[in-house]
Amino acid sequence: MADPLRHHGDVEARGLLDLAVNVYDGPRPRWLDEALLGSLDAVGAYPDPTAARAAAAARHGRPPAEALVTAGAAEAFTLVARLRPWHRPVVVHPQFTEPHAALEQAGHAVTSVLLHEPFTLDPALVPEDADLVVVGNPTNPTGVLHPAEALTGLARPGRLLVVDEAFMDCVPGEPESLAGLRLPGLVVIRSLTKHWGIPGVRAGYVVGDPDAVAGLERAQTPWSVGTTAAAAVVACTSARAAREARHRAERIREWREHLEKGLAGLGIHHLPSAASFVLAQVGDGVHARLREAGIAVRRADTFPGLDGRWVRIAVRPPETTDQMLVELENLRTIGRRAI
Amino acid sequence: MADPLRHHGDVEARGLLDLAVNVYDGPRPRWLDEALLGSLDAVGAYPDPTAARAAAAARHGRPPAEALVTAGAAEAFTLVARLRPWHRPVVVHPQFTEPHAALEQAGHAVTSVLLHEPFTLDPALVPEDADLVVVGNPTNPTGVLHPAEALTGLARPGRLLVVDEAFMDCVPGEPESLAGLRLPGLVVIRSLTKHWGIPGVRAGYVVGDPDAVAGLERAQTPWSVGTTAAAAVVACTSARAAREARHRAERIREWREHLEKGLAGLGIHHLPSAASFVLAQVGDGVHARLREAGIAVRRADTFPGLDGRWVRIAVRPPETTDQMLVELENLRTIGRRAI
Repeated sequence: MADPLRHHGDVEARGLLDLAVNVYDGPRPRWLDEALLGSLDAVGAYPDPTAARAAAAARHGRPPAEALVTAGAAEAFTLVARLRPWHRPVVVHPQFTEPHAALEQAGHAVTSVLLHEPFTLDPALVPEDADLVVVGNPTNPTGVLHPAEALTGLARPGRLLVVDEAFMDCVPGEPESLAGLRLPGLVVIRSLTKHWGIPGVRAGYVVGDPDAVAGLERAQTPWSVGTTAAAAVVACTSARAAREARHRAERIREWREHLEKGLAGLGIHHLPSAASFVLAQVGDGVHARLREAGIAVRRADTFPGLDGRWVRIAVRPPETTDQMLVELENLRTIGRRAI
Repeated sequence: MADPLRHHGDVEARGLLDLAVNVYDGPRPRWLDEALLGSLDAVGAYPDPTAARAAAAARHGRPPAEALVTAGAAEAFTLVARLRPWHRPVVVHPQFTEPHAALEQAGHAVTSVLLHEPFTLDPALVPEDADLVVVGNPTNPTGVLHPAEALTGLARPGRLLVVDEAFMDCVPGEPESLAGLRLPGLVVIRSLTKHWGIPGVRAGYVVGDPDAVAGLERAQTPWSVGTTAAAAVVACTSARAAREARHRAERIREWREHLEKGLAGLGIHHLPSAASFVLAQVGDGVHARLREAGIAVRRADTFPGLDGRWVRIAVRPPETTDQMLVELENLRTIGRRAI
């Protein structure tokens, strides 16, 4: 593995039963498929993100100047990394590693703040001189949902506070979301990839402080958001999408409860999760043995602060989860026999 | 206009008869529409550019390590700008302004080499200490096709030579293309946008020196090339596409001859072009008067080295060209009456 920070679940899932990739396990809504299809009629013109920008902003009660459409959350992380000559950029780990990798790619020395179990945010650990702080909420891969106040307490004059809400759609009602909050120096990154099952489209957006948003826009490559991605943003920020998003969030919660109950039944330690995955301490070597059995879960040792005992298990419908649970039980039985 | 280097034809064409945007004026091939449509079946997975990379490389007789798929040529310019801490980056003007803008965006001070009419490349004008040289071939907006040897003569140890061949598909047989040439420090940027009518898809690629290509890849944002763009690259680099590309190039040549003959008939000075546009000296104010008449041509005063007398006219089928020529003649008649 070249760079552990650049390891992602998609390469783990190939050819296996996929409990590695955190994408909602269900068909795309018909209205979204129609929007993607309809966008192909418009690819003969250069992409124009105006409507998508307005729609993303309106989704969170904001004017268009407080939103920027991006080629997935990944582009947003690149833009944040290139926004300023950061003096003390801080990433709170364990979390999705792309913000850290993008900062290093842009030549910055990153300060890691390492949380320990149960991985709740301790604002006192963030250095006072940090001019950039990146936190995920709910956090990938721990599933922890930080309270909104713990996050807003990190805001400081002259500091950019970046909250990655790529999985916030998983939380019914989104009570801890900061996407609608106007706070100087705050930007929130959202993704359409996971909840809507369109990682191939590259659609996401940033909302927040209009000065920061304008700065991110200045760093953007022209036309980086394609016509299909812009159409997806419009479709997925509609009132209709909001209803379906909530419905999906509730299904994820049910499926997750099934998974958590199964893990508990096997005596496997895991963290209570607010997201579409569960971080479980299955023990060393289990990741590889599940692979041998044709089941992909996400290794977690590439996340700073975790090790080979942990894996991240994507929330799936019960029938898929049960296949994985049966295999986990088999492995434990074999393990006991071997003793 | 905020930044003249960031002005492009797409904003000029809205609502008008479009002779501003350099995109081929004809329906997309059916096989391309099928590839775009088919790609939507795969957007539920993260994009995988492996097949596109191999196809782009093979199109120019190269192994995959000598190609990188990008979100249009625009992303390639961003990657070039970020590749190294350039000491003396040189852009040969007049040319497409995005490479220059991307270098400035990345914080570099750019040295402009200004060519004068007839805008043929004079290698002696390029400073010997340039560690980056960017040239377009054929050049936008002049339409000049530089000989391959004039370009390869610019290669130096320690220098990156970037040839933007976004319009090379317009040249039947592509005799001056360097896309298949193995020369240390040479990279060639190609676009699918113009010839295939898919600016909304964001599909392009780089081929060349494998070390430089590897460096560009390291600077890339993860998954920046979407699933649909990757599918377009595969489709447009096939043998079938090569036959159709040549056919289109020949049609562009015929259409261009019609335009050039019309301009000559009106006594309008213009440059002989090898591309899908013609740079014409219509005189001050004509750009605005054509707009008032509902016709968009591309202003050329935003290109370093040109002024308000010049416009860039996109090559179109004769019936469209004739509408513009009639209007140009009207304006000249009015102009004469006013004297």
